[in-house]
Amino acid sequence: MNVQQVDLLVYNIGNLVTMQGHPGPRAGEAMSEVSHLENGAVAIADGKIVAAGPEKEVRDRITGLYVAEELDAQGRLVTPGLVDPHTHLVHGGSREHELALKLQGVSYLDILAQGGGILSTVRATRRATEEELYRKARRSLDIMLLYGATTVEAKSGYGLTLEDELKQLRVAKRVNETHPADLVSTFMGAHAVPEDYKGRSGDYVNLVIHEMLPEVKRQGLAEFCDVFCEHGVFTVEQSRRILTAAKEMGFGCKIHADEIEPMGGAELAGELECISAEHLLAATDEGFEQMRQGGVIAVCLPATSFNLRLQKHARARKMIEMGVPVALSTDYNPGSSPTESLQLVMTLGCLNLRMTPEEVITAMTINAAYAIGRGDVIGSLEPGKQADLVIYNAPNLAYLPYHFGINHVDTVIKKGKTVVSNGQLVY
Amino acid sequence: MNVQQVDLLVYNIGNLVTMQGHPGPRAGEAMSEVSHLENGAVAIADGKIVAAGPEKEVRDRITGLYVAEELDAQGRLVTPGLVDPHTHLVHGGSREHELALKLQGVSYLDILAQGGGILSTVRATRRATEEELYRKARRSLDIMLLYGATTVEAKSGYGLTLEDELKQLRVAKRVNETHPADLVSTFMGAHAVPEDYKGRSGDYVNLVIHEMLPEVKRQGLAEFCDVFCEHGVFTVEQSRRILTAAKEMGFGCKIHADEIEPMGGAELAGELECISAEHLLAATDEGFEQMRQGGVIAVCLPATSFNLRLQKHARARKMIEMGVPVALSTDYNPGSSPTESLQLVMTLGCLNLRMTPEEVITAMTINAAYAIGRGDVIGSLEPGKQADLVIYNAPNLAYLPYHFGINHVDTVIKKGKTVVSNGQLVY
Ligand SMILES: [Zn+2]
Ligand SMILES: [Zn+2]
Repeated sequence: MNVQQVDLLVYNIGNLVTMQGHPGPRAGEAMSEVSHLENGAVAIADGKIVAAGPEKEVRDRITGLYVAEELDAQGRLVTPGLVDPHTHLVHGGSREHELALKLQGVSYLDILAQGGGILSTVRATRRATEEELYRKARRSLDIMLLYGATTVEAKSGYGLTLEDELKQLRVAKRVNETHPADLVSTFMGAHAVPEDYKGRSGDYVNLVIHEMLPEVKRQGLAEFCDVFCEHGVFTVEQSRRILTAAKEMGFGCKIHADEIEPMGGAELAGELECISAEHLLAATDEGFEQMRQGGVIAVCLPATSFNLRLQKHARARKMIEMGVPVALSTDYNPGSSPTESLQLVMTLGCLNLRMTPEEVITAMTINAAYAIGRGDVIGSLEPGKQADLVIYNAPNLAYLPYHFGINHVDTVIKKGKTVVSNGQLVY
Repeated sequence: MNVQQVDLLVYNIGNLVTMQGHPGPRAGEAMSEVSHLENGAVAIADGKIVAAGPEKEVRDRITGLYVAEELDAQGRLVTPGLVDPHTHLVHGGSREHELALKLQGVSYLDILAQGGGILSTVRATRRATEEELYRKARRSLDIMLLYGATTVEAKSGYGLTLEDELKQLRVAKRVNETHPADLVSTFMGAHAVPEDYKGRSGDYVNLVIHEMLPEVKRQGLAEFCDVFCEHGVFTVEQSRRILTAAKEMGFGCKIHADEIEPMGGAELAGELECISAEHLLAATDEGFEQMRQGGVIAVCLPATSFNLRLQKHARARKMIEMGVPVALSTDYNPGSSPTESLQLVMTLGCLNLRMTPEEVITAMTINAAYAIGRGDVIGSLEPGKQADLVIYNAPNLAYLPYHFGINHVDTVIKKGKTVVSNGQLVY
């Protein structure tokens, strides 16, 4: 990068994790190869990284350039901005009343029969105005930013009619245009079979393929298409039809696969060369192998398993051993994972998926960036990439998952601008 | 209360949980009897509650009095200030490096053999100056306050020499005197057998009884005495000796009991009429019955079980059914539970202990207050009690454990003064 001046120099970084030169998902087995630099610095100009590395080298690199602002990191930890590659950010309502029912032992199917569960969120989302959805989504995105996420994927899928799906996607677009964090939009009309299509899921699949996908494409409202492939939701064959159609229209493909039973969702992800496959608690070794061959990134969602009290977890260790790249995400949604905190996901990644802090940070930066098609612009602090970074009130990487349940973020810099300072929004 | 003026009126409370008239630990089975008031208000004078209840009644009660300040709760949830009845607040160092070892499958005993575990915290605490311990403890107490705790118990037990135990307790005293949150101090010299007493735990018990306890008493540095009754730490007989001596000197008694194996710690708590017994994962029904008869409060620590990945949890439901009052706490400490967030403990109380949101708030307010001998001044919003309360960015009680992993606190009022506003310390 040739620049006229340095806009911001972050110096005195006690522990700098740049992810520079990390192969990312091109080599799953390298997930633990994370270098920690002491005495680091990051120089930023025009919203991009000019240099990131040992402070002496960075200062050498920018010799003679005017430095507009310096920020003392006070010996603390700095990582690339976190990337949350799987959320259901835009939705109406909340479902805390279901907590008491669940504690009484009422099953999810009974809650559903009482009008609860996902279909109550569908009703609340349909009822909500765009302004209401916009304000609620912004507030959650603010929280995500406060916890260190600078780029977030957001799925539709609580509309389940053409108009309501477009409404969700328009809200995501507006949030993206007006909020400092970046949103990446995914169309997920095939999130559930709506009530009025009960017993005729094939008809709904046709609606998704022939009406929704083309209109979403025409309006340019989503980059990816996602499908919930699960018993009682969409079959492997239906998922294949939807994703194949989406691919032909130029969407990237994602799939909620093998969350509860090994249905062959992971295999389908491999076959279709999806950019990512999600959940995967029940996926088989064969499924992992096909994912590896298809270059699919596994997006694991341990906060969901935690909140659903599943004793089973995604086999992240096995995937890492086999060379399947792993990303981590909150799965933020009002039913199975009402949390915006990627930092709690770090802890759950270590405790329940047995990932190391190094693997966890890889999974939330470079791998997550690739999982939403942004590996070339974010996910590491390399010259030319977007200047998205986080300063934590923490001395090192392991401290983040270790000291759990609170927010360690002090400062968030997005595209070179300080948007969180002293743990507070300042944009 | 007769007052000249109202210093602060909090009004427009959408959901007010006062815990008024709640029997507290006097009736364990009433833990779920929590009333939620809509349109509530709280009037405060001289740091105490003048009235708390329906807004109309509160305004009637203070008719004619000058109101110095009004605070609009904007329809949100208000509860009594949270009480954290079991923490190891004052200590040196942190142990994040053990996380990687644990993930590699290194056992706690091997970590201990490598100089890690509790004895590394003992070394760090002994090495630290009082000023260092003071600053670190204050910072953690700030976080606790930000997450809604207005009163916190703090144990010594990382010194394990007379001088180092006194040092920890002096730090707690200084923090209490200078921080808006209240600290309640517990002497826990019998937290571990120090290295130089290996194989001679009886000698160490004598030191605790004959030198430490009298000196702590003489200097007035602790209200309670606690013992770690566990295989390989202190036996039931040693625990009985220490707690009996403490009781005779006028200390209240607490006991870390039956965490791993049913040793009879719960039974001992009942026999000695301890104010509380802690952990209790392995306690038997017979132990619970003796606790009930002895009026002992069970302090459950689900964040510890979570962090240690125990599949076993304290049988809170059984205790509640049997009429044993349950309190909840973070167990904040650098080894088994490095978290300050009582809000995450709420979630864990619901998910893992199967407590309802009503039982959880009882466990963190009135029952927790009684567990540290403060049931007459805090734990509920009743006329004459201390004006400690929390306003949350949440519409109702169930929302707190439901929407997990983040901080919902907007405002904390301690003794009538606003100490957290907009999620930030303002004292
Ligand atoms: Zn999802
Ligand atoms: Zn303890």
